[in-house]
Amino acid sequence: MGWGDLGAFGEPSKETPNLDQMAAEGMLFLDFYTASPLCSPSRAALLTGRLPVRNGFYSTNARARNAYTPQDIVGGISDSEVLLPELLKKAGYISKIIGKWHLGHRPQFHPLKHGFDEWLGSPNCHFGPFDNRALPNIPVYRDWEMIGRYYEDFQIDLKTGESNLTQLYLQEALDFISKQQASQQPFFLYWAIDATHAPVYASKEFLGTSQRGLYGDAVREIDASVGKILQHLQKLGISENTFVFFTSDNGAALISAPKQGGSNGPFLCGKQTTFEGGMREPAIAWWPGHIPAGRVSHQLGNVMDLFSTSLSLAGLQPPRDREIDGIDLLPVLLQGKLIDRPIFYYRGNVLMALRVGLYKAHYWTWSNSWEEYSKGIDFCPGQNVSGVTTHTQEEHTTLPLLFHLGRDPGEKYPLSFASEEYQRIMERMSAVVQQHQASLVPGVPQLNVCDKAVMNWSPPGCEKLGKCLQAPPAEPKKCFWPH
Amino acid sequence: MGWGDLGAFGEPSKETPNLDQMAAEGMLFLDFYTASPLCSPSRAALLTGRLPVRNGFYSTNARARNAYTPQDIVGGISDSEVLLPELLKKAGYISKIIGKWHLGHRPQFHPLKHGFDEWLGSPNCHFGPFDNRALPNIPVYRDWEMIGRYYEDFQIDLKTGESNLTQLYLQEALDFISKQQASQQPFFLYWAIDATHAPVYASKEFLGTSQRGLYGDAVREIDASVGKILQHLQKLGISENTFVFFTSDNGAALISAPKQGGSNGPFLCGKQTTFEGGMREPAIAWWPGHIPAGRVSHQLGNVMDLFSTSLSLAGLQPPRDREIDGIDLLPVLLQGKLIDRPIFYYRGNVLMALRVGLYKAHYWTWSNSWEEYSKGIDFCPGQNVSGVTTHTQEEHTTLPLLFHLGRDPGEKYPLSFASEEYQRIMERMSAVVQQHQASLVPGVPQLNVCDKAVMNWSPPGCEKLGKCLQAPPAEPKKCFWPH
Repeated sequence: MGWGDLGAFGEPSKETPNLDQMAAEGMLFLDFYTASPLCSPSRAALLTGRLPVRNGFYSTNARARNAYTPQDIVGGISDSEVLLPELLKKAGYISKIIGKWHLGHRPQFHPLKHGFDEWLGSPNCHFGPFDNRALPNIPVYRDWEMIGRYYEDFQIDLKTGESNLTQLYLQEALDFISKQQASQQPFFLYWAIDATHAPVYASKEFLGTSQRGLYGDAVREIDASVGKILQHLQKLGISENTFVFFTSDNGAALISAPKQGGSNGPFLCGKQTTFEGGMREPAIAWWPGHIPAGRVSHQLGNVMDLFSTSLSLAGLQPPRDREIDGIDLLPVLLQGKLIDRPIFYYRGNVLMALRVGLYKAHYWTWSNSWEEYSKGIDFCPGQNVSGVTTHTQEEHTTLPLLFHLGRDPGEKYPLSFASEEYQRIMERMSAVVQQHQASLVPGVPQLNVCDKAVMNWSPPGCEKLGKCLQAPPAEPKKCFWPH
Repeated sequence: MGWGDLGAFGEPSKETPNLDQMAAEGMLFLDFYTASPLCSPSRAALLTGRLPVRNGFYSTNARARNAYTPQDIVGGISDSEVLLPELLKKAGYISKIIGKWHLGHRPQFHPLKHGFDEWLGSPNCHFGPFDNRALPNIPVYRDWEMIGRYYEDFQIDLKTGESNLTQLYLQEALDFISKQQASQQPFFLYWAIDATHAPVYASKEFLGTSQRGLYGDAVREIDASVGKILQHLQKLGISENTFVFFTSDNGAALISAPKQGGSNGPFLCGKQTTFEGGMREPAIAWWPGHIPAGRVSHQLGNVMDLFSTSLSLAGLQPPRDREIDGIDLLPVLLQGKLIDRPIFYYRGNVLMALRVGLYKAHYWTWSNSWEEYSKGIDFCPGQNVSGVTTHTQEEHTTLPLLFHLGRDPGEKYPLSFASEEYQRIMERMSAVVQQHQASLVPGVPQLNVCDKAVMNWSPPGCEKLGKCLQAPPAEPKKCFWPH
C-alpha cells in the first residue's frame, strides 16, 4: 500500500472512511517510513527493530539489490535476532501473527520458533497457482502445521480477483482479541494482511465497489476490516488499553498499475526504489484516551520504531547487546514531541539515501537496469526526472543529490551544489553518514542462496492432509536479484 | 493553487488547518474543475456561468492556445455577457470584488460597469516592477479609480517575497462583511486573492513559516485569512445565512516550481494543460446549518456552477436567452445528490478532452511546443507519459485516448481501443460531444488583439495621484500566444 492510498492522505476517491476516522481519533504520521522498499526486509526490520543490513535481510550477490524470501530461498530470520514477540513474552504477552510472515519458510524460521504463540497465514506471498511439480503451491499454516495450500484449499480467483482471505484473517483477529480479553491476558497481534499485494484480491461483498477497480476493492475491504477491529476493541471495553498502529511494508507497487497498483500520492516512483514513493508510508496511531484525537505528526518515523515503542508500552527495555535502529515514539504520541533522527534508505547493503529533517541526500540513484526497463519493468511509470530516476547505478557519494522534501516532495529539483544551503546541510548529513557507517556491523546476509529443494514441498502437517510433495534433489545456487 | 495544495487533499506538509476545518464543517469536492487551465478565461466563466468559448475569453490567433488578459490586451468582458453581480442586484445584493479582476482593464471592462458595486484590487496580474516607460506598473483600484500602482505604492519585495497585500485584502473583506451585516443588506463577496500566483508573496508574519518555502507561506496566509473570514461570519451571527465556497482558477503552475509552484497531488501536469493537474481544483463548500458537516462529494463540479448555484440561492433564474454551462449545485450541497453532467476541457476554442462519469477522453493532446519546451518551459516537470504529454498537437478525434480516472487518476494508462469498455464508453462520450458541438455558438473572441497603447498608462484617478503616463501611439496587432 502506498502513502497516497488513503483518503486521509489525499487519495482522490476517498474511499477509506474507517482509516480516515482512525486518523481523526488518533495521530496521522505524514513522514513515516519503511526500512526497505520491499516486503521481507521491511517486515524483518519491523519485528527486530533493526535495519535489514544488520538483521541479515539482504543479499550480496549483486550490488544494491532488493532481495526477499521467495519459496526457493534458503535463508530466513536468524536465531541470533531477537524478535518483538520473544521480548513481549517476558511481560506476559501472548503474540499472534495473522497473514504473511515472509521471514523464511524453512522449519527453523517458523514464527512460533521466534516468539509468536499462534499463527494463521502463509510463509510466502500468495503467488500461484503453481503446478505442484515444478513449484508447489504456497501453504497456509495454523500454528505449527499447514492446513492447506493457496489455490487448492484457499481460493484466489485470478480472473475475478475474488478471495475471502481478508474476511478469514479478520474473523481470526476478532476471535483472538475476544479470547485474550476474556482471559485478561495482554496480547500482541501482528495483523499482516496482504490483499493489496499482487495478485490483488477482495471478497465478493467488496468486488466492484471501488472507483479504483480491484485494487480499490481490496483497500476498501482492508479499511472496513480495520474499522471492525477498532469497533471490536471498543465493544470489549479495551480500546483505552490497546495501542493500534496501521502502516504498510513498502510503497505502492506501481509496476502492478493500473489494474493492481496503488498510489504514492505526490511522491516519486514506487516499491523497489529508494525514492519517497518506495518507502514513505501511510501511518496512523490510535489509542483513545492516551493519544489526543486528530493530531498530525511530522515526526520522522520508521516501522522499526514499532519494535521500540511496543517494548516501551510493555514496560520492557530493548536488547542492549546490539544496535537497535527503532526509537520509542511514546513522547511523540503522548506529548506531541519531535525527536531528531535520520532515515536511512537502503537497497541491499548499500546506503542509497539519507533523510535528516526536511532534507534528503541521494548517495546513489537507481530505478532499475536498462535491461529490465526495456522488458517493461518500470518502477516509475509516467515519471522521469533526469539524472535522478536513473537506469544505471549512479554514484553521487562525493557530491550527493540533495532535495528539500518540503518545497519539493516529488524529488524533482536537486539543490545547487554551489549554494550555501547545500554546503551547510551536506556537512550535517555527512556527519550522520560517517557516524552510521563507522559503527555498522552488517549481519550475515540471509538472502544469497536459493534452492528449489527447500520449497514448500512437504511442510509440517502435510501428511495428515495428503499434501506432501516430492522435493527435487538439493541444488543450491546464488539467488538472482535483478533490481 | 492546485488540487494537492491543501492538507485535506493530501499535501504532505498539511499546513492548512483552517481550510481543512472548513471542509470538516462543510462539503469537500474531489472532482471539481475550472472551465479553463488558466486565469482570465476561468474567471470569466465563473462570473458568467458560461464556457470561455461562449463568453469570448479565447483567441483564434493560433490553434488551441491559452490566452488571458495581459495589460496590452485590447479585449475584455463583453457588454453582451451578463455577470453574476448584475443578476444578484435584482435580488438586492451588494457585490464587491477584492483582488484580481482579470476580465479586461480598459474603461468599458471595469468591474463596476459589470455589476460590482465596490472594488479593491488590480485589473491584471501583479507582474512587475515595470519601468513605466516601456511598460507601466499595474494599478490598484478602489472602486472607479486607481489608488496607486504595484511596486510603487503597493509593495511586493521580489527578493524576500514579502507583501502585505493578502492582509490588505483580508481587512477589506472583514470590513465589507461587517458593513453589510450592519445594514442588513445581502451581499456577494468575490474574494479573488492572488498570493499563490508568481511572483508569490506573503506577509512578514507568514514568511518562513512553511515547510514548503515561500509558496507554502502564501498558502498558509490564505488559509489563515479564510479562517478569519469564517470566524467573522460566525461572530456576526450570519454564518448560517452565508454560503461560502473556496476554489481556485487553475491548477498549480508547475512551471514556477520548486520555488513558486504548488502541487496538483497525484494528477498529471499543471496549469496551461487540459490534463487533470491543469483543471481539477481544491473545492470546499461551507454553510453551517444547511450543508451537513464532513461530507465528501464526487459530484463533477465546475467554477461555472457557482454562477448558477448563487442565483439559485438568491431565488433568481439564470438568463434564458443564452446557453448556461453551470448547474445548480444545491441538490448536491443540501441533499447529497449526484447530477450527471459532463466536464469539457478546452484550450482556446478547441475541445481537448471530455469527462463523463469516471471516464475522460482526450481528443487532442498537447503540453506545449518543442520550441517552448526546449527553452525550459515545462508544464509537466518530472512527468512524461508517452503519447499523452505530447509536444506536438496530436489529434485523436477519430480514436480518442480514453482514461478511467478512478483506476488511473494520473492519466497514464489509456484503455485499449479494442476493449468492450472502450467501445461502450466512447459511444456515450461521442453523443455528448456531438450534442455539445451541434448547439455551440462561439462568442466573438476577445483575446486576439494586443496593443501597447491600451496599457495601464493613465487609469482613471491617475491625475489626482500624479501617476498618469504617456501612452505610445496605437499599434494594434495579433497577440502572440505560444501555448
